[in-house]
Amino acid sequence: MDIVKKLLKGDKRTLARAISEVEDGNTSILKEIYPHTGNAYYIGITGPPGAGKSTIVDKLTSKLLVRNKTIGIIGVDPTSPFSGGALLGDRIRMSDIATKEGVFIRSMASRGNLGGLAHTTKNVALLFDAAGMDCIFIETVGVGQVELDIAGVCDTTIVVLVPESGDSIQTMKAGLLEIADIIVVNKADRDGADRIVAELRFVSELRGKTQGWEYPVMKTIAREDKGIDELISLIDSHKEYLERTGNFEQARKQRIKLRVQELIEEGIKSRIEKDIIKPEVMEKLVEKIYTREKDPFQSAEEITSSLF
Amino acid sequence: MDIVKKLLKGDKRTLARAISEVEDGNTSILKEIYPHTGNAYYIGITGPPGAGKSTIVDKLTSKLLVRNKTIGIIGVDPTSPFSGGALLGDRIRMSDIATKEGVFIRSMASRGNLGGLAHTTKNVALLFDAAGMDCIFIETVGVGQVELDIAGVCDTTIVVLVPESGDSIQTMKAGLLEIADIIVVNKADRDGADRIVAELRFVSELRGKTQGWEYPVMKTIAREDKGIDELISLIDSHKEYLERTGNFEQARKQRIKLRVQELIEEGIKSRIEKDIIKPEVMEKLVEKIYTREKDPFQSAEEITSSLF
Repeated sequence: MDIVKKLLKGDKRTLARAISEVEDGNTSILKEIYPHTGNAYYIGITGPPGAGKSTIVDKLTSKLLVRNKTIGIIGVDPTSPFSGGALLGDRIRMSDIATKEGVFIRSMASRGNLGGLAHTTKNVALLFDAAGMDCIFIETVGVGQVELDIAGVCDTTIVVLVPESGDSIQTMKAGLLEIADIIVVNKADRDGADRIVAELRFVSELRGKTQGWEYPVMKTIAREDKGIDELISLIDSHKEYLERTGNFEQARKQRIKLRVQELIEEGIKSRIEKDIIKPEVMEKLVEKIYTREKDPFQSAEEITSSLF
Repeated sequence: MDIVKKLLKGDKRTLARAISEVEDGNTSILKEIYPHTGNAYYIGITGPPGAGKSTIVDKLTSKLLVRNKTIGIIGVDPTSPFSGGALLGDRIRMSDIATKEGVFIRSMASRGNLGGLAHTTKNVALLFDAAGMDCIFIETVGVGQVELDIAGVCDTTIVVLVPESGDSIQTMKAGLLEIADIIVVNKADRDGADRIVAELRFVSELRGKTQGWEYPVMKTIAREDKGIDELISLIDSHKEYLERTGNFEQARKQRIKLRVQELIEEGIKSRIEKDIIKPEVMEKLVEKIYTREKDPFQSAEEITSSLF
């Protein structure tokens, strides 16, 4: 197939076309390119809006380009139902990266279906992988289910906070820290940087004792390019740690398992809606549950049992 | 069954016990109490951390108690894996409400499983409903999938913002506004209140033209009890609107349908993990996908097809 061959050669226009197809739900191309995937290193970047995630990704990208790496960047905005929300805005402001050879950027928004967004993002990442990107950054805002799902496909997940995050994202912290391999406090020249770093180090230490990786907390001032080299070293160290301990292969296999289960569930789900329960049967059942003649729990169990 | 009888009489200790059972995954009690549910009015309150959601719920509760209503409050914190996170902290600070006759409060945190959290919250709400609560407030932080799921079970959803929300939650707005029936700008004595109200009204007007409800935007200063009476009137108006237009019954039936589908999916999902694919078969499949001998898409399709 012509499109597959061109994609594997890294042709940007073909990649854009393949992404559109995958976004429209066409999986046949994914089956064809899958044998050529698995070579890219996946890096997740997440954190609250305004933390400077895009700036960090841009600075990292510039430095990796010097090392002759090809870079794919996927900006995911689960909160925006409009394609090209805040993230795309950020991107446009730093268009110098977008125009460089060896860099491919794609912004994705929710279209109102969050489950679908995480799913599509993973598929688009596979296309980047097949197109020969050495490194794929997946940038997400916040700490919802989409972020957790996406962190699940990344080899290294970086959580970016700012000194001001201290209070306002208090409630987000626990969730964010759970998925972080590296924690970055950006805009570290602002008041309160040392305090939040100390707090985060305290939490990381508690966590480090039960795992084989120390969950480093570091400062950056991305806009001034400060701390970016150190961050790259940390990403390298994390990769090296994963490979040395066998965690890399193990984690990727675990991800494959979850992915297969997810795809099976999705397949079954679409069948439930289409074939398994006829609309008129469902309507009658709903009526009976609404009038409390039946209950949803028993009804669902009976339907599930009848399937097997 | 003794526990069911006591629960239906509104016994607080029995309710607490039933909640624990439901949190542990026991659904048998839900089947028994289901015929006695459907009488409570469900109100969702969501918005960013620090917007004053708990204060608003407390003030609303005080006023509804005067009207002889019984109130259930469920605080849901998807970002905290520790039971009793920020929300419980808030609650403790305003313990005057918690101790009142006719009020039952429960805080829920994620335990690391966000899908499960929304699910359990809905089940706990059913227990509140069966225990005779006239009104159930479900309070959530943020705008993730959990909030969207929970908004899906509420008759009226109130989104609470503050003047400062203007920029920082820019990216959250679209998602939040989608689920709001009533928008409240709390702490409205602060700078920027008029501006954010104007912005939100503009967005609401666009939306109002395509729906039968005008999505009001109002100001409160909950701490000083300002705007709370007006908010209660708006909730009443929304309820009256839903009933008048037939949307109340229609929306509840739609929710029942989604719930049944969700329960079936869950039943199938747990069977997939337990029975359908034997661990050794899955392990071999994962190995083949890892080495790129197979692809996850085709594999999942084959398994799904074999089920039907």
